Amino acid sequence: MRVLGIDPGLRRMGWGVIDVAGNRITHVANGVCQSTGDDLAERLLSLHRQLHRILADHGPSTAAVEHTFVNKDAAGTLKLGQARAIALLVPAERGLSVAEYAPNAVKKVVVGVGHAAKQQVDHMVRMQLPGVEIAGPDAADALAIALCHAHHARFSGRLDAAIARAGV
Amino acid sequence: MRVLGIDPGLRRMGWGVIDVAGNRITHVANGVCQSTGDDLAERLLSLHRQLHRILADHGPSTAAVEHTFVNKDAAGTLKLGQARAIALLVPAERGLSVAEYAPNAVKKVVVGVGHAAKQQVDHMVRMQLPGVEIAGPDAADALAIALCHAHHARFSGRLDAAIARAGV
Repeated sequence: MRVLGIDPGLRRMGWGVIDVAGNRITHVANGVCQSTGDDLAERLLSLHRQLHRILADHGPSTAAVEHTFVNKDAAGTLKLGQARAIALLVPAERGLSVAEYAPNAVKKVVVGVGHAAKQQVDHMVRMQLPGVEIAGPDAADALAIALCHAHHARFSGRLDAAIARAGV
Repeated sequence: MRVLGIDPGLRRMGWGVIDVAGNRITHVANGVCQSTGDDLAERLLSLHRQLHRILADHGPSTAAVEHTFVNKDAAGTLKLGQARAIALLVPAERGLSVAEYAPNAVKKVVVGVGHAAKQQVDHMVRMQLPGVEIAGPDAADALAIALCHAHHARFSGRLDAAIARAGV
């Protein structure tokens, strides 16, 4: 099973890909998409294109996106919603199932507690993916989301089903 | 110039297409996309496909989307943001410019005042597009957005430029 994790954001969208085979989890790639363009439509289009390129390059079999409900203000929430739509749409366009995890669920699975600090998440991601070079905080969050999905699939017994679906 | 107006919503997305030739504005088509699917990614994908179909069927040369900042709550704003992303993305994917208008700007152009009631907007849309059959309130709003864009382009002298770009 190859998992793509996405940390959605309109300016920067973190992504991380890991391989899961039984108990073995290995890092594949990670990075950050930066949106370009003068208006919102162009920025969304640039994220859409970059994400499609990442899926084409790394061929994940499943995807997970962070599910954030609230933000500081309505304008920020609207922007986050727009970015999340692209993060959810692109894997769905390629026929992948897309899981959503709340930030606290991600932290609980990856660190062990729901209210972990950002550097703790970063630390645990590096522990679980030895030698990984991380492209930035957004990419670290994306790898954490991918790890959460991998563990969740394993513990809930869905791993075998996912592996069967992926034909690996 | 053929204008597509979109009133974004996650459950129902209104759309309307009008033709503008000099002072003459005529109705082409309108309708409402209803999202289907069990999860958010599938619903966004269904809206994405339906909007692409509408653009393929009616070939607009420019698009306009309502720009709403706030909503009742954060969850509602996030949903609206997700729907708006699809409304902005699909025309951009096809190389169209996408204008954004605040609801009050739409009302001001179509009705004459910024705080018009919904039925007033509906009435003025019917006045400006005689004989039109409207698929519902979301489609009426979408036609109002298209009319706003048409008037705005005309009054700001951008119509000629848009016509030149569209090659008509």
